[in-house]
Amino acid sequence: MAKNIVQKIIEAHLVSGEMVAGKEIAIRIDQTLTQDATGTMAYLQFEAMGVPQVKTELSVSYVDHNTLQSGFENADDHRFLQTVASKHGIHFSRPGNGICHQVHLERFAVPGKTLLGSDSHTPTAGGMGSMAMGAGGLDIAVAMAGGAFYLNMPKVVKVELKGSLKPWTAAKDIILEVLRHLTVKGGVGRVIEYTGVGVASLSVPERATITNMGAELGATTSIFPSDENTRVYLELQGRGEVYAPLAADADATYDEELIIDLDTLEPNIAQPHSPDNVIAVKELASKRIPVQQVAVGSCTNSSYTDLMRLASVLKGKTVHPNVSLVVSPGSKQVFEMIARNGALADILSAGARLLESACGPCIGMGQAPSSGAVSVRSFNRNFEGRSGTADASVYLASVETCAAAAVLGYIADPNELGDFPVIEMPEKFLVDDRLVLAPSATPADVEVLRGPNIKPLPVNTDLADSLTAPVSLKVGDNITTDHIMPAGAKVLPLRSNIPAISEHVYVRVDPQFPARAKEMGKSVIVGGHNYGQGSSREHAALAPMYLGVKAVIVKSYARIHRANLINFGLLPLTFVNEADYDTVAQGDEIAVDNLTEQIQAGNEITVKNVTKGTTFTVTHDLTGRQIDIILAGGLLNYTKKQAI
Amino acid sequence: MAKNIVQKIIEAHLVSGEMVAGKEIAIRIDQTLTQDATGTMAYLQFEAMGVPQVKTELSVSYVDHNTLQSGFENADDHRFLQTVASKHGIHFSRPGNGICHQVHLERFAVPGKTLLGSDSHTPTAGGMGSMAMGAGGLDIAVAMAGGAFYLNMPKVVKVELKGSLKPWTAAKDIILEVLRHLTVKGGVGRVIEYTGVGVASLSVPERATITNMGAELGATTSIFPSDENTRVYLELQGRGEVYAPLAADADATYDEELIIDLDTLEPNIAQPHSPDNVIAVKELASKRIPVQQVAVGSCTNSSYTDLMRLASVLKGKTVHPNVSLVVSPGSKQVFEMIARNGALADILSAGARLLESACGPCIGMGQAPSSGAVSVRSFNRNFEGRSGTADASVYLASVETCAAAAVLGYIADPNELGDFPVIEMPEKFLVDDRLVLAPSATPADVEVLRGPNIKPLPVNTDLADSLTAPVSLKVGDNITTDHIMPAGAKVLPLRSNIPAISEHVYVRVDPQFPARAKEMGKSVIVGGHNYGQGSSREHAALAPMYLGVKAVIVKSYARIHRANLINFGLLPLTFVNEADYDTVAQGDEIAVDNLTEQIQAGNEITVKNVTKGTTFTVTHDLTGRQIDIILAGGLLNYTKKQAI
Repeated sequence: MAKNIVQKIIEAHLVSGEMVAGKEIAIRIDQTLTQDATGTMAYLQFEAMGVPQVKTELSVSYVDHNTLQSGFENADDHRFLQTVASKHGIHFSRPGNGICHQVHLERFAVPGKTLLGSDSHTPTAGGMGSMAMGAGGLDIAVAMAGGAFYLNMPKVVKVELKGSLKPWTAAKDIILEVLRHLTVKGGVGRVIEYTGVGVASLSVPERATITNMGAELGATTSIFPSDENTRVYLELQGRGEVYAPLAADADATYDEELIIDLDTLEPNIAQPHSPDNVIAVKELASKRIPVQQVAVGSCTNSSYTDLMRLASVLKGKTVHPNVSLVVSPGSKQVFEMIARNGALADILSAGARLLESACGPCIGMGQAPSSGAVSVRSFNRNFEGRSGTADASVYLASVETCAAAAVLGYIADPNELGDFPVIEMPEKFLVDDRLVLAPSATPADVEVLRGPNIKPLPVNTDLADSLTAPVSLKVGDNITTDHIMPAGAKVLPLRSNIPAISEHVYVRVDPQFPARAKEMGKSVIVGGHNYGQGSSREHAALAPMYLGVKAVIVKSYARIHRANLINFGLLPLTFVNEADYDTVAQGDEIAVDNLTEQIQAGNEITVKNVTKGTTFTVTHDLTGRQIDIILAGGLLNYTKKQAI
Repeated sequence: MAKNIVQKIIEAHLVSGEMVAGKEIAIRIDQTLTQDATGTMAYLQFEAMGVPQVKTELSVSYVDHNTLQSGFENADDHRFLQTVASKHGIHFSRPGNGICHQVHLERFAVPGKTLLGSDSHTPTAGGMGSMAMGAGGLDIAVAMAGGAFYLNMPKVVKVELKGSLKPWTAAKDIILEVLRHLTVKGGVGRVIEYTGVGVASLSVPERATITNMGAELGATTSIFPSDENTRVYLELQGRGEVYAPLAADADATYDEELIIDLDTLEPNIAQPHSPDNVIAVKELASKRIPVQQVAVGSCTNSSYTDLMRLASVLKGKTVHPNVSLVVSPGSKQVFEMIARNGALADILSAGARLLESACGPCIGMGQAPSSGAVSVRSFNRNFEGRSGTADASVYLASVETCAAAAVLGYIADPNELGDFPVIEMPEKFLVDDRLVLAPSATPADVEVLRGPNIKPLPVNTDLADSLTAPVSLKVGDNITTDHIMPAGAKVLPLRSNIPAISEHVYVRVDPQFPARAKEMGKSVIVGGHNYGQGSSREHAALAPMYLGVKAVIVKSYARIHRANLINFGLLPLTFVNEADYDTVAQGDEIAVDNLTEQIQAGNEITVKNVTKGTTFTVTHDLTGRQIDIILAGGLLNYTKKQAI
């Protein structure tokens, strides 16, 4: 039977389950990656499993999130990550080596392999033809320990790229166009597979921009074929030997289809405060919206070509006096190459502010814009407040559109810049992996160093047989994990310290939430559609668990967050009748009797609203294995019980 | 009569007073500079004076401290500074243009001119033969308004440099040697004037390293002659026309003398936690003390030559796996030059982490080391906790010694690095002042933009005629302004918001202090010798004033802090008998009757310790003008009253 790329890779890695969309499958994971903000938890969890050495083909621990180091916490985390990696067979990418996804694409991603990463933008490696998925840290820990990764067999959406991009229109504009069509929940339960003649016109880093921001669709992942461009890119990276061609069979079928015509595509921009709030830049340009900040970088748009493009626009020009332009190269490779070829000097000359090669302002780690500012960014997320400035308006666009705004001082179609300079791929990428430390050859000698910021892992208890608890919070649609567990310079350093970080749960939505939840002892959260979209941070499940949240009842979930809820033993329930959402208020007492029995008996559970004197029905949609995890109080307990 | 350099410059700028050491004089100020952490206050004060345009020859507003931008506050401050500068005739150096002292040296400092800066390291320009002094923001505001700067005529200390530096020994080692001899209070009331054959062997940036860190001596300033090296440096900066020779007369006399023999000088290092805790590096080297962090940059050591030296050591080597090396070029000029000539690529290649051209880790603005870490820094201060990590051990050393530690992973004499590569001055510095915005030609059209972080200036009230108040805090010797008003990533963003920042006064010494002082309503602080050394921040006077502190009684003062106390109307008193310090305890009720009369009657004041039933005598050492300022409740009130 003819297969698409997704089916081919899943089939080659299938451990259990049936490849029928929506059914649970388990697949073998070849590679894992972590970043420091989720990695400390992942490795604490890996340690708790008692497996001495990772069983993957390759596991890499990156440091790219917590690099500001406003207190001792970040550096302590780095030291922990370096030593725990050395001890357990994990490669460690030192601070300064770059953003995990950019570095992984350059140096480690392999066509046809599976990659699981504790970061929602792990699909970046899909630009290389890798099946690369974000997951919670605990899932990564299980994968490192040799366990399979469980997910529902996704639907496969074919996105056919016709034609080729016009000058000043970029890969970023393609994914923004896809977001315009599919929205931030259009990818849930789906993998986006790119096909069509347009694919051949896109380089691997351009494809990676598209698959990276596929995360904003809520997609399980996005993937491109591995073709001649892939081979060339790998050759230029000195990794030609890992090349393998990968394409859908000619008569492969797909669950859904979308066609994007590159010939007519115009520069796009996502307006505040959602990545799918997309319009053509030219529709905004006539408003001459003044811009106070432009930021270029992030795992979406910080490749060599991206920075060369920026340099070519800036050369001989000056950053507008009212604009702060901040630039973060995606990797040490990119940074050193543009430092050697003069492009960095051109960027500096124009007046850009240069930041370390790291996530930086994309995760609110510095460079918060001024009050009420307009900030145009080459990044992937513009959730309200994520920039660190509550009333800032963040727009997402291509490097080209960012460069135009930096020079002109307002939101402008990059076509206003005139002639389009062609940026060639380099003859060879600068290959130097000295900042990636190989694990120790004598792991017994390695002492894992823990600073006072690394707190022991809180673990849930078995699920009780009845649940009576008040609703501690009721929220609407499209709640992001940034809402649940904010990032930013103040909160991110606490990622290894659940008691401390739990004081920040939902504070941007309701500053009283942590205190109220703790006082309630146990509680339930009620929400709308696409609950938990965005970042893969498992802290958005773990910290509510620490505050006593036992169950979440919503209209629908984002994939990774739902998996994280299960991993930590929080019941992920869904309203059967969405109208019931309206009948539940914050403070209402919710009760479920014979909980264990109800979960095991079938998919439906009857919930009493004690306060209102009503009942309604929810589904749990849990597989047998997930039921066992929930009953055990989470995946870590479950895994330990399995071992016994 | 034969004169030294200090006498020549002061005589040429004298407005009033007699040039007798210890007597109050007033001098005309040619140039001012501010940085953003002190500048917002300085410009709020300038605005309060109602003078439309600055009356100096040149005033420059720099942004170099608050560049992390973890919240909206920093960017709001930058916007305020940019607009207020444009409106009032002040040049604005945009974020990214570099550290104020490095940029001022490169682009604006002039031999023989007076420069007043709201930063204690303003003496950097003394390397150019400028009489450059740090002062509180209010003094800068007065100078911008055309007022004279009042200070006590300093003693002049001649430091004679004999011979010339050996390979691997640097200008930094000279100032560390001077600090070893004179200590952190040895320079109080003095200017250090450098002479001798060794002067000719030092470039202007090397001289600037020495005068910069003269601030750590407590000196009023430090100064070098303006000679052929000065002329060459100015020519290379395209500013040959401002060159003027400046030297002491052959038979000039000095108040004190010190001789440093460069021929025998060895690399030095200041150990934790004081810049004068200096020993030769080779005495530490045998201990092989492991290093976790190395930081190169700051206004002390971030010149072109410094970065070229670092690059030459790092080229082809790798930063030790256990060391985080962070590098901040001192200015856009330096940054772009090393980006153009390949040196930056060599630094990156070795594994350094590159930071924006700003103060950064020197002021605890990021890059806090790990718990208990050893950090070797090319900076000027190593006060306990200033790095952001309370239990870190910070050492101060030359770029050469820093580079050795970065590569070897332990504190090492740079001679261990082998052959010493000669670093030549460039044929021409890269001159590009596009990031310095000239003030508006139509100031009436400029709207000054204030964000919600810019709070109105609190102003003191007239001094009451009697003072009865408890001692809210008793501290020991060498209290720094970092103790009184901490900097760092958490506190610095509040510099424009006195109510908020006052919650941090003395918290590292006593977390209860702000609450206690506020509850007391008014209070007195008691301290030891060299009270208020270090940074020039006037917040160390202004925020205690806001908390109700009315007087400070200590054994002796650092110059700038004492001036700041007067500027904000806090009585700076000194024990006549140091033994009386021991009789006063925290919580004791202190009373002074007929305060106004006693101050005006003479230098001595009788203080009652009501709690102990004792009395003791203090001096105020105020000039007639300073008495008027104190009685008026500070310089701003005084200036307004003068105007009426």
